[in-house]
Amino acid sequence: MARILRDSWDVRASRLSLNTHNSIRNVVEGIQLKLNPEYKLINLSLGDPSAFGNLVPPNELLEAVRDSVAVCASRNYGPTNGELLARQAVAEYSAHQGSITADDVILSSGCAHALEMSITVLANPGQNILIPRPGYTIYMTLAEGLGIKCKFYDLLANQQWKVDLESLKNAIDDNTAAIIVLNPSNPCGSVYDENHLLDILDIALTFKIPIIADEIYEHFVFSGHKYTALSSLSKDVPVLTCSGLTKRFLVPGWRMGWVIIHDRNNIFGKEIRKGLRNLCGRILGPCKLIQEAMPIILKSTSAHFFSGVMSFIERQAILAFQELKQAPGLNPIMPNGSMYMMIGITTCMFSDIKDDLQFIEQLYSEQSVFCIPGKCFFFPNFMRIVLTVPEDIMREACKRIIKFCEQHAAHENSKEIDTTTLHVELEPKALRRY
Amino acid sequence: MARILRDSWDVRASRLSLNTHNSIRNVVEGIQLKLNPEYKLINLSLGDPSAFGNLVPPNELLEAVRDSVAVCASRNYGPTNGELLARQAVAEYSAHQGSITADDVILSSGCAHALEMSITVLANPGQNILIPRPGYTIYMTLAEGLGIKCKFYDLLANQQWKVDLESLKNAIDDNTAAIIVLNPSNPCGSVYDENHLLDILDIALTFKIPIIADEIYEHFVFSGHKYTALSSLSKDVPVLTCSGLTKRFLVPGWRMGWVIIHDRNNIFGKEIRKGLRNLCGRILGPCKLIQEAMPIILKSTSAHFFSGVMSFIERQAILAFQELKQAPGLNPIMPNGSMYMMIGITTCMFSDIKDDLQFIEQLYSEQSVFCIPGKCFFFPNFMRIVLTVPEDIMREACKRIIKFCEQHAAHENSKEIDTTTLHVELEPKALRRY
Repeated sequence: MARILRDSWDVRASRLSLNTHNSIRNVVEGIQLKLNPEYKLINLSLGDPSAFGNLVPPNELLEAVRDSVAVCASRNYGPTNGELLARQAVAEYSAHQGSITADDVILSSGCAHALEMSITVLANPGQNILIPRPGYTIYMTLAEGLGIKCKFYDLLANQQWKVDLESLKNAIDDNTAAIIVLNPSNPCGSVYDENHLLDILDIALTFKIPIIADEIYEHFVFSGHKYTALSSLSKDVPVLTCSGLTKRFLVPGWRMGWVIIHDRNNIFGKEIRKGLRNLCGRILGPCKLIQEAMPIILKSTSAHFFSGVMSFIERQAILAFQELKQAPGLNPIMPNGSMYMMIGITTCMFSDIKDDLQFIEQLYSEQSVFCIPGKCFFFPNFMRIVLTVPEDIMREACKRIIKFCEQHAAHENSKEIDTTTLHVELEPKALRRY
Repeated sequence: MARILRDSWDVRASRLSLNTHNSIRNVVEGIQLKLNPEYKLINLSLGDPSAFGNLVPPNELLEAVRDSVAVCASRNYGPTNGELLARQAVAEYSAHQGSITADDVILSSGCAHALEMSITVLANPGQNILIPRPGYTIYMTLAEGLGIKCKFYDLLANQQWKVDLESLKNAIDDNTAAIIVLNPSNPCGSVYDENHLLDILDIALTFKIPIIADEIYEHFVFSGHKYTALSSLSKDVPVLTCSGLTKRFLVPGWRMGWVIIHDRNNIFGKEIRKGLRNLCGRILGPCKLIQEAMPIILKSTSAHFFSGVMSFIERQAILAFQELKQAPGLNPIMPNGSMYMMIGITTCMFSDIKDDLQFIEQLYSEQSVFCIPGKCFFFPNFMRIVLTVPEDIMREACKRIIKFCEQHAAHENSKEIDTTTLHVELEPKALRRY
């Protein structure tokens, strides 16, 4: 065996670790931020509905976990795919997705881990997965380290962020291992209707590509809109649906997610089920304390709690939309669901701001309001705000953002128009009622 | 872009997922087991000190978690490497490992995840890591899927499972990315003294290979023996130490582990720290509910609790050793720590048993006692038993194992002697006092 005595230490990190990037973190950490000490920070960047303390899980849910502390099984090792009772509870809770049993459910350490297993089982290094643009960045974080490429398909800002079906078709090649569909969407707040989901399924069927449905925002829809599980419409396309307690139950820190295997014609039966079971053996499943409480959490949390949270988020969306559409240079796009709003930034309207990154940076240093630049979602000239902050803080944030825009608005009309954002309707027809 | 319309679906699982194997599961599931309905099952296979309900964490620890349910931060997203207060608590708890701060600590979803990050950051596909034989199988589960090879170095059964230093040196080649040292050992129950650890460090220094120290059984030592953290002896060899609450605090199901970075001369500073931080971004850290309780758990759990658990395990070890050394064909090796005992099986002493697998299988079907065959640890003609079962169950198990051996003992002396196990001392000198 070749063995050369090295002169000096040279321990390098693996490609996997060096190619695992979080683009939000990279962009945000690269920003030269200085808070304006006159104002208290308002952080509209955190995709964490529990962060502000105004949205709190119902007491029954917390009690269920408190009670499970005393149960011996909450401390034992369990099956690596999750305890049967917890998986059964997820199967019942997810009946809207289609006909599933506990055998189709794999518990994971949060939805990120569910996505990791789904991407990892479907794609080899050198293959690619298709991801939406703008879209949540974790797919890239998870795929690229493994040598799996990410190719974008476009969402149409002026059509309520529907998938550009031509762009989706064009992105598919012989190495495409999966299409990721994120609905309702982060960062867009879009909710697709059945016809649009059927169009996406049609393309997957034509090219015989399985779908990873990221539905962590399932049921996050505003009045007048309807969430439909992609899997429930799929006759022939196999789907792995990823979700979890995270957002809807306001407990992201609990790291409880799941993958649901929606096989069709035994396409996943051949290898994917086994591959997923193997992957469960790597880190041995999520925290048993939460698993133990899952049957109670999933069955006893009241519809009233969920609808209360959703009306709050919808009120915030309307508030922010109505306020910010008054700001010169901003084009908020009213969301139909999830907990975010995308806001177009017409940079040519400002005298001294060249892009979304600079907008975010100066907004922070002058008004102490922090939003995520569109660049983080691969979609420049936009920014994302979260809608879960308390109402008084949202009002104050809007006031500061408007002030900022007014202060920076260009008063000469001589500047060239930035055409990249002009395809966004300032106020989509469907939203006139707000 | 090449794009061929496929005639039919053909969704294959990735190499990573298909090459992720759990050898214990594979061997155990391959066994044709039929329980003897006359006897109740005694399961001596589970490496889970909480499984039998006789060992229970102290009440303060359970209270700490119960209390943290009410805390908002226990439900939020946190830093992906873990909350500062929890990491600080781990750094203080681990002061015996050397001088470390919270910055050197990364929290993980159990020790398996700590090992996953450590292996993943140090080795690229095509490289190899060195693992002990007999040894715990998860290293292989974690490495092989990623295309990282595992090469064995031998432990010497007749020298209290010390590392065969020549075999370690010979296993090193130019592609060796890390040496894994598991001390105290699963399945062997060995505890290395300082001199032996220094010998191992010497080899790592000569070949400039970093060490992953799996010390999940830290402090698991029987009277008269001493656990020394490998990192505490290392002057020039950088070490990643993996541990967790799992075994010592009797809460494997809580999935709380950690990696501690023991850098030397900034060898890990160049890339490894960054690589580990990147890897944290994949599944976003362990359950915050447990993180929140960590400062209290790690500081307030009494020495009395730990010593109580250890004397219980030691008494069980002595009991099982004294009983089983009477069984014809069995050569128990008295452990010095951890919670397991390896037992040599001299198959030539039996008239109708050809190997450890058949021994385990027949023991199960005749006496309803289940142990793990040495084959699972890449070490045939041995079996592993766990020492954490209640005393009456351990007595009953020993009685049944002895009966089984007596019933199968060969009474003719004509059989050839199986030399593979004869290097094991029937009763090591050091253990005569039991």
